[in-house]
Amino acid sequence: MRSGKSKVGLIGLGTVGKSVVKLWPRADGIILKRIVDKDKKKGDSALFSTKPDDILNDPEIDIVIELIGGINDAYRYIKSAIEKGKNVVTANKALLALKGEELEKLALAKGVSLGYEASVCAGIPIIRGIREGLAANRIRSIYGIINGTANFILSAMEEEGIGFARALSEAQEQGFAESNPTLDIDGLDSQHKLAILARLSFKTSVKLSDIYVEGIRRITHSDITYARELGYSIKLLAIAKAEGKRLDARVHPTLISKDNLLSSVRGIHNACFLEGDACGKMVFYGQGAGGLPTASAILSDVKAIASEKRGLFQMSSSGKVLEECLTGGSSRIGIVPIDELFTRYYVRFSAIDKPGVLARICDILGKHNISIVSVIQKERSGTRGVPIVMMTHKARESSMRKAISSIDRLNVVKEKSLFIRVEEVED
Amino acid sequence: MRSGKSKVGLIGLGTVGKSVVKLWPRADGIILKRIVDKDKKKGDSALFSTKPDDILNDPEIDIVIELIGGINDAYRYIKSAIEKGKNVVTANKALLALKGEELEKLALAKGVSLGYEASVCAGIPIIRGIREGLAANRIRSIYGIINGTANFILSAMEEEGIGFARALSEAQEQGFAESNPTLDIDGLDSQHKLAILARLSFKTSVKLSDIYVEGIRRITHSDITYARELGYSIKLLAIAKAEGKRLDARVHPTLISKDNLLSSVRGIHNACFLEGDACGKMVFYGQGAGGLPTASAILSDVKAIASEKRGLFQMSSSGKVLEECLTGGSSRIGIVPIDELFTRYYVRFSAIDKPGVLARICDILGKHNISIVSVIQKERSGTRGVPIVMMTHKARESSMRKAISSIDRLNVVKEKSLFIRVEEVED
Repeated sequence: MRSGKSKVGLIGLGTVGKSVVKLWPRADGIILKRIVDKDKKKGDSALFSTKPDDILNDPEIDIVIELIGGINDAYRYIKSAIEKGKNVVTANKALLALKGEELEKLALAKGVSLGYEASVCAGIPIIRGIREGLAANRIRSIYGIINGTANFILSAMEEEGIGFARALSEAQEQGFAESNPTLDIDGLDSQHKLAILARLSFKTSVKLSDIYVEGIRRITHSDITYARELGYSIKLLAIAKAEGKRLDARVHPTLISKDNLLSSVRGIHNACFLEGDACGKMVFYGQGAGGLPTASAILSDVKAIASEKRGLFQMSSSGKVLEECLTGGSSRIGIVPIDELFTRYYVRFSAIDKPGVLARICDILGKHNISIVSVIQKERSGTRGVPIVMMTHKARESSMRKAISSIDRLNVVKEKSLFIRVEEVED
Repeated sequence: MRSGKSKVGLIGLGTVGKSVVKLWPRADGIILKRIVDKDKKKGDSALFSTKPDDILNDPEIDIVIELIGGINDAYRYIKSAIEKGKNVVTANKALLALKGEELEKLALAKGVSLGYEASVCAGIPIIRGIREGLAANRIRSIYGIINGTANFILSAMEEEGIGFARALSEAQEQGFAESNPTLDIDGLDSQHKLAILARLSFKTSVKLSDIYVEGIRRITHSDITYARELGYSIKLLAIAKAEGKRLDARVHPTLISKDNLLSSVRGIHNACFLEGDACGKMVFYGQGAGGLPTASAILSDVKAIASEKRGLFQMSSSGKVLEECLTGGSSRIGIVPIDELFTRYYVRFSAIDKPGVLARICDILGKHNISIVSVIQKERSGTRGVPIVMMTHKARESSMRKAISSIDRLNVVKEKSLFIRVEEVED
């Protein structure tokens, strides 16, 4: 077995790192030569060191696994490893979203591989699926539930009838959300992953700032109830679509029809819907996080690289794609600004229930060319704000924002109004 | 681009072959040098020939795509191509199910690749997913809806309230079923595909005769209605599970809970649920047939091979697996005979409705240690048979068969009884 020749250094012995070590017996004789973590209390084997240089400067080590997360140190180690002619395997989506193109270009120049199957959807082989499996396709669209924490929270709100704060606490208690949950619930983690998926799928540079992002903090239990009545679930979706020569890429809470497979993705699961012009529609579904699922993906990359498939990540058909993308300028496609979005909206107003209020709201919407499909107003109260929920026909986002801003200045409106975009995903 | 060096010969210009030609502009400069079909009326280009030897004897051609289907000729061409040191890409699941191990062994010996992503689930990259993406896993179970025709028929019966014969006609009219639909509706196509998936997943030789197979001809509309009332869908499932050191592999109509994702797979779609010990549970979903989806998979293999990843299909981590499997004897694991199956059953009897009949049926079931969860008997009739539907607790298949055989000998029983196995798939 040729893979026996590879020697691997692992930097970062957290949850995923430990799972990689645990799963190492499946590595077909590939040797784990060194494990580095800055916390020396973690060192319980002869392989252990606290110095990344013990890996980076070891000429025998030809594959470096980076699992420390974060940007600066990880970037430095990965760059140094590639410059020294080592292959790199990482799960670091934040770094890849920011520096993936640069690092891939460097790896291409140095003739080494940069594997990052673990960066999106953990053990689900979606990176390999897009890069190789769908290499003959033009991908038209991606709709992904790619953050398990946000999906857990929205599912708990829907299934248990609880509010956002309580669902977040539950997620934290069960270990599905960090004590600082910003990355997950504000959509940033999904944004990072979408940047990676969109770059591979649409063969173009994608900057993080190209991707509009909005989290789930403002979704209430009543939004979920109203959405359900209307036949929808609310999911934090990462969306990327080719719109002519431009890319429409965004992450936001989204109403999707109960009939769609994505609406039945519950709890911490991930699912990614893709449409290619040859392969048709496709969904990858599974566990999108966790130590062992992520380690499963890390090892799949290590094994692929060790099998002398050095050229795999650059030189496969998707390598061509990457080369195209990496040659820069010309292949950078335009971005659809969020203001140009043209879609249906769910809108929740909170207004005093007295005659004429609904008429004033409708009047403002009408002036902005927004027409209404249906209105739900259940509770009644003369003095405090009650929710008024509307579904609109397709409207321009810029018009919607202007209309909402006017409506929110009405003195009968008691809270900042909320709108949630609707997507029609045909599975 | 190194792939520019590859030259390809295509044998078989049917639906998939034509789609491969159509998709060829996506082949990144890989040259399609020769197209062979025995029907010379299909020859409309200078590349065309009716002689497979024009490909097999051309030393410049290093990749042969076999798309003629069937066993004998396809086997001869593939074997000859491999013996001449050519890589082969094929969608021929029937041949792979019968001769896949032998051909893979030959390819391994000759140092060439045998690519067959297109043989299961068309464009869904499940072969690559299992071989490479899940290479660090022990796969525990597979549950697949891997025949679009059968799923179309069962979906139509459920959605349109029609019987089997009419649903089959609809499938034929819409081009989703052959005029001779045996392979699809009798489960043989699923059996072929399951043989391929199980060999890769469980790293063992799988003979077709190891896989119990039963088709969907006997399913009536009323079975679907009763199943729905009980909270189930009926799907033609291909199932493979590791049971200790034995493999439980079978294809049959199956009741699966309405709550399971697989139950919402409609029409011609395919879905394959997998559980690995590291990656967890996973579903691949998409179009499982059709010219372009299949061509998408064919080209993914061609591109991978052309990218000088010659060793890909043998030498990757899954290559190790295959080597293990191919070294024969010792790695061949046992098979769970269908008689040993222990599961819940849906049973439909057709009996004359008179006092004591149900008691006699229950008595026979009880003597075979089969206990009943629920009974549905809606229609009433004194003289002709009316359906009696039961759900049982878990029972041994051998007992069930014996009980049914006794019951069918009762003179109050008017038709051969039908039982359908129930699977609990936790997604």
